[in-house]
Amino acid sequence: MDAIDVIVTKRDGRELSREQIDWVIDAYTGGVVADEQMSSLAMAILLNGMNRREIAEWTQAMIRSGARMDWSALPGRTTDKHSTGGVGDKITLPLAPLVAACGGYVPQLSGRGLGHTGGTLDKLESIPGWRALLSNDEMLDVLNKAGAVICAAGDGLAPADKKLYALRDVTGTVESIPLIASSIMSKKIAEGTGALVLDVKVGSGAFMKTVERARELATTMVELGTDAGVNTVALLTAMDRPLGRAVGNALEVTESVEVLAGGGPEDVVELTVRLAREMLQAAGVSGKDPEEALKDGSAMDAWRRMITAQGGDPDALLPKAAETMEITAPSSGVLTRLDAYGVGLAAWRLGAGRERKEDPVSFGAGIMLHAKPGDMVRQGQPLMTLHADETSRFERALAALEGSYTIGESGDRDLLPLVIDRITA
Amino acid sequence: MDAIDVIVTKRDGRELSREQIDWVIDAYTGGVVADEQMSSLAMAILLNGMNRREIAEWTQAMIRSGARMDWSALPGRTTDKHSTGGVGDKITLPLAPLVAACGGYVPQLSGRGLGHTGGTLDKLESIPGWRALLSNDEMLDVLNKAGAVICAAGDGLAPADKKLYALRDVTGTVESIPLIASSIMSKKIAEGTGALVLDVKVGSGAFMKTVERARELATTMVELGTDAGVNTVALLTAMDRPLGRAVGNALEVTESVEVLAGGGPEDVVELTVRLAREMLQAAGVSGKDPEEALKDGSAMDAWRRMITAQGGDPDALLPKAAETMEITAPSSGVLTRLDAYGVGLAAWRLGAGRERKEDPVSFGAGIMLHAKPGDMVRQGQPLMTLHADETSRFERALAALEGSYTIGESGDRDLLPLVIDRITA
Repeated sequence: MDAIDVIVTKRDGRELSREQIDWVIDAYTGGVVADEQMSSLAMAILLNGMNRREIAEWTQAMIRSGARMDWSALPGRTTDKHSTGGVGDKITLPLAPLVAACGGYVPQLSGRGLGHTGGTLDKLESIPGWRALLSNDEMLDVLNKAGAVICAAGDGLAPADKKLYALRDVTGTVESIPLIASSIMSKKIAEGTGALVLDVKVGSGAFMKTVERARELATTMVELGTDAGVNTVALLTAMDRPLGRAVGNALEVTESVEVLAGGGPEDVVELTVRLAREMLQAAGVSGKDPEEALKDGSAMDAWRRMITAQGGDPDALLPKAAETMEITAPSSGVLTRLDAYGVGLAAWRLGAGRERKEDPVSFGAGIMLHAKPGDMVRQGQPLMTLHADETSRFERALAALEGSYTIGESGDRDLLPLVIDRITA
Repeated sequence: MDAIDVIVTKRDGRELSREQIDWVIDAYTGGVVADEQMSSLAMAILLNGMNRREIAEWTQAMIRSGARMDWSALPGRTTDKHSTGGVGDKITLPLAPLVAACGGYVPQLSGRGLGHTGGTLDKLESIPGWRALLSNDEMLDVLNKAGAVICAAGDGLAPADKKLYALRDVTGTVESIPLIASSIMSKKIAEGTGALVLDVKVGSGAFMKTVERARELATTMVELGTDAGVNTVALLTAMDRPLGRAVGNALEVTESVEVLAGGGPEDVVELTVRLAREMLQAAGVSGKDPEEALKDGSAMDAWRRMITAQGGDPDALLPKAAETMEITAPSSGVLTRLDAYGVGLAAWRLGAGRERKEDPVSFGAGIMLHAKPGDMVRQGQPLMTLHADETSRFERALAALEGSYTIGESGDRDLLPLVIDRITA
């Protein structure tokens, strides 16, 4: 077996054999296949595709490159959610403890933000004392105490994916559905969850800009999960506008706590409850209904236990940005459009995101939205408030927001439904 | 400008701008664009192609990465030939002095063999004392003395191509017509020749296996040369069977000297004369006819001057292999097929070629063919003689020859014509 054989097979539009896939993933992880060989293979895969068998075997080979977690010691069933990422997508924060309060166990491995979408770990790190890095024993301990844990994936999980993802990031080979699907699913399957709900975002603020591409990715991931014995379902959900009213790390934690307290923005509550029901159903857990658990305080209790068990203080004041700036409506009418990408980019430029992997984020930076698409606004009324540590950040954020919202007649709204479709095996 | 922009442009099937091409070639040569980025771009180019403008700009950028030679100090016009490589293709050896004898100046930069096709420099190095490495001043001196020079390309010529070729070799991205064409033509244009004749080989022993692919490559190179102001023409010629009767370094030198002496195999003579006429015509030189120069000894005189001026002794005995083995006809009939690839591979295994770039070649090793396709053979008559330095080499060479020739009825020959087509701008 040699790297050129494998590359040429895919380059010429033929199927990779199981032996070729196993060898190339193993040899790449071990440094036998060089970066320049893997990147040329990745481009060939991006342009010529892989079929269901190839994607499943590619994913399994990446899982076998590392450890696989095991939650059989828990007294109940595990279930998890993965979102492909969006602007204001803080759903994991209220969702994990909510599902725990309803009888599921949620061993959620999350990531950090890069680019215009935020990262769950960055958001939670705005809570003083909270730790993202846990050992497997610590994860099990938090799960036993709170029913949910949200933490960083250790180095031992799918190391082939870690290496390949970093390579794809610099070689223009990120946007391949087989490679995206196998990257996400290798980590989720290795994480050892019994059930999985995928939240595949669609729209300007999402990685998938069209319903068609999102459906293709969702179908591929549902097939992968199913083939690996994980009960998997996917929702396609709207990311043409931001989710909720808060965009930014500590701002989103505050909004999440409002949801756990029975309040919060309508869209965040609706999606959180819907995803919680999907997660419980996929795991076959029939406990308390999620709406009930938000009302009776049990979801909030699970949140407080989870944060505390990971070293955080759920009552601590969260970091605030030193400077704010208000944007007001230039005319009266209906806010017909509020572009998720523009808002995400502005929040990123305010300091909520990082430019390079090694950069810190500002916990207080971000945007609070005072109007959402469909809302009536009067000229001069506040549309949003920008938060940043330095006033020098406002100018570039304003440039990102230019053209990102439209005030018009009531009739011309053209928003995606919050939940667009549901994909099952 | 950044590497990912350039990669994504080509990946998504769009045209690269002149700025993108200039930047990426320059940045790759300078180490700013990494190997893994260039290989992913090369795969995108292989699969999505480049148009005539892109290929021309890509080639010009590679030429600008290094020096460009200048022969304006010569008293006559320069003209050169490039062959895409074949088995027994020693044509450069008699051709360069032949054209010199007819009034052209031939500044030929050649390469070494890798794989089953031989290299012109390896062949000439079997002549005791002969030197392949010349400075520009030495090249000019040999040209002034002999009218022709055959030597290695210095490091200063198209260094971007040198780096890119080594990368393509290990990343499955060799077989791209735009990249092959720009690699060949960047060196030939930088070499500074005024006219160029391309000998694009077709068949099992050639890089291009079909007439269609060969025609595409030839057309691309003729366009490239023409766009760069070099009067360029291409012939498509047969490489389904070996050229001539000698395959191997010193064996081919001997055959070349026979041609220069007015003898030699019919096909070698025919192609040498045809290419000489094309080179003279492309340069607009109307001197002696090549057939005449072979008869009157002037081509041989030019050869002797050229070899002597590069330190070689034209009268020296050439190295001979210590061991020989004869292969005889297993039956009587007509030799209907003698596969160029099989013979090339056998010669390579006998020691005429190298396995790794740094390996030496055996000057004496190779194959002498006693019958060519179309010849009548009697059972037991010698078909070919294998030459090697060790008898241990014969077994693997015999395996390569298995199934490489067919003795049958006279009616079933299906050979390509020696000259298949002629491509002009």
